[in-house]
Amino acid sequence: MTYLQSEFQVIQRYFNQNKDCSTSINQGIIKGIGDDAAVINVSEQSKLVVSMDTLISGVHFPEITEAFDIGYKALAVNLSDLAAMGASPSWFTLALTLPDTNSAWLNDFSRGLFELAEHYKIALVGGDTTKGPLSITIQIAGYVSEDTIMYRSGAQIDDDIYVTGYLGDAGAGLSLINNSLINNNVNRDTVNLSDAAQHYLVSRLNRPSPRVSVGELIREFSTACIDISDGLMADLNHITDLSHCGALINVENLPISNELSQTKFDDSNIELALNSGDDYELCFCASDKFKNTIKKISDNLDVPITKIGKIVQENSIQCYLNNNIYEPKNTGYEHFKP
Amino acid sequence: MTYLQSEFQVIQRYFNQNKDCSTSINQGIIKGIGDDAAVINVSEQSKLVVSMDTLISGVHFPEITEAFDIGYKALAVNLSDLAAMGASPSWFTLALTLPDTNSAWLNDFSRGLFELAEHYKIALVGGDTTKGPLSITIQIAGYVSEDTIMYRSGAQIDDDIYVTGYLGDAGAGLSLINNSLINNNVNRDTVNLSDAAQHYLVSRLNRPSPRVSVGELIREFSTACIDISDGLMADLNHITDLSHCGALINVENLPISNELSQTKFDDSNIELALNSGDDYELCFCASDKFKNTIKKISDNLDVPITKIGKIVQENSIQCYLNNNIYEPKNTGYEHFKP
Repeated sequence: MTYLQSEFQVIQRYFNQNKDCSTSINQGIIKGIGDDAAVINVSEQSKLVVSMDTLISGVHFPEITEAFDIGYKALAVNLSDLAAMGASPSWFTLALTLPDTNSAWLNDFSRGLFELAEHYKIALVGGDTTKGPLSITIQIAGYVSEDTIMYRSGAQIDDDIYVTGYLGDAGAGLSLINNSLINNNVNRDTVNLSDAAQHYLVSRLNRPSPRVSVGELIREFSTACIDISDGLMADLNHITDLSHCGALINVENLPISNELSQTKFDDSNIELALNSGDDYELCFCASDKFKNTIKKISDNLDVPITKIGKIVQENSIQCYLNNNIYEPKNTGYEHFKP
Repeated sequence: MTYLQSEFQVIQRYFNQNKDCSTSINQGIIKGIGDDAAVINVSEQSKLVVSMDTLISGVHFPEITEAFDIGYKALAVNLSDLAAMGASPSWFTLALTLPDTNSAWLNDFSRGLFELAEHYKIALVGGDTTKGPLSITIQIAGYVSEDTIMYRSGAQIDDDIYVTGYLGDAGAGLSLINNSLINNNVNRDTVNLSDAAQHYLVSRLNRPSPRVSVGELIREFSTACIDISDGLMADLNHITDLSHCGALINVENLPISNELSQTKFDDSNIELALNSGDDYELCFCASDKFKNTIKKISDNLDVPITKIGKIVQENSIQCYLNNNIYEPKNTGYEHFKP
């Protein structure tokens, strides 16, 4: 038996029909596999944008995660994909696989799910409930006009590269949970880390903030966008690959939260910010002339938006720390890697 | 801890937002939870119909099922939901959870999936691939004009009740597989049953025929339709419940295949036809005046369409065998039942 290394290889090899376009064209598929979401031509005015994400217990969230947080996160990660396309979310379907029908669990899960659904005024329109190992799949759909859709492939040489929020918090939250489980709650990394700071970092893992409003405002001028689910390096690499360009990152400019800066993990905070997953912040590119607009969007929404580098011609991502080349230790999370 | 009895209860109690309609109305949701698929207003001309179904290994297909058949069936059951609404399928997304990335398995699975996708000229537009216990979720989407959508709720008193194809074959196929596993291939039920007949019955379980073309033709006049996934009695009960009516079934008219009629199961063939799941045939209602039209559709498509009873006012489903009341032994498959 041959085993493939990555999710990307699996999709490319077995499920990417793009080579045979006639079906896609006939069915009005504007963008199929290969971005944060697919884009479908349903009317003149607006295009349907759809994305699907699965969360598996023990893979995408620690098994001890509260049901409320699982419901919240399952919808948040899907909303994040639409945000990365600049789409306004509208409705979703839910496939929920459960080992049993524990009422307390279902009550908490649905509260978490609907807290976010009601915030964004989106409707659960259908789905499937089955018995099996805990797993949640959501397909979300939204709308955007064709000329403002943000793809991964549009970055231009000399564009500024921005990220929303803070990077590495979710990775730190996961380390806190893993350490506390391994070390029976005696955690050397969290010495001197306040309860509030620990709570904040774990909450960034469990309840990511989908940047829907940011996406709806930057779509007017941003050339390329992706949401950071597998780590900045891995996800920015999708933009540079598909845009046929490279990037320079000034790691001293990476936005690090006060809480993360107080931790003492084996991996430095820079490594967490570059390579840990699950932050679900947006990474986007825009011409320098929009810097004041971006500052205003950041102020109005009260969401940090930080310039971290520039798009360059040379086909690689190069990191600098105070003008010296910095070599990241790894390059993001991949399913199926041993 | 409280445990709920059924999938239906879980959905009604925790996930049905229909009571609070403002979000649904604002998002153009014409039909949310509670039918074979949801209906969404995306343009004046045609409505988007979406359905999502999950297949779990060992629950929805025997663990020994070939990868080709799993891929085929995962798409077939979703196509069947669209057929029941009268929608023409267009595109789908796939969430595939795999324990590992075995190339041979993936190759066969994707061949099965795309054999059916190419037959119906529908596009795989996206999805997610994750590591975990084998599970396949597909969300399918299609289009139909609003005035021809078939809901479960439209059956009229005196309508004829029809089913496509043959009933009970998939249930017999499952019994063959289970018996052969239990009895080490010495199977008392299949004595005198030819290899061809056994192969046919198992193939009805593994490769159901979604009745898309039937749905596209009967939608012009059918008052209510559902696909038979949990057994005729259970699924017809959804029609009579939501249409506030009852039904009379003449069990001697149930369409039984030659192959099924040769078997000698503990459950009679009538029981299999009434209550076994996985046939994915359509059950629909239509006025008597369309009987010749239905005959022509059946002839043209070479798909049996059989009248099995009538819609009546009294709020129950009553079965008759040669004018005597017949009491079915059970009433269909329910997830989460002990």
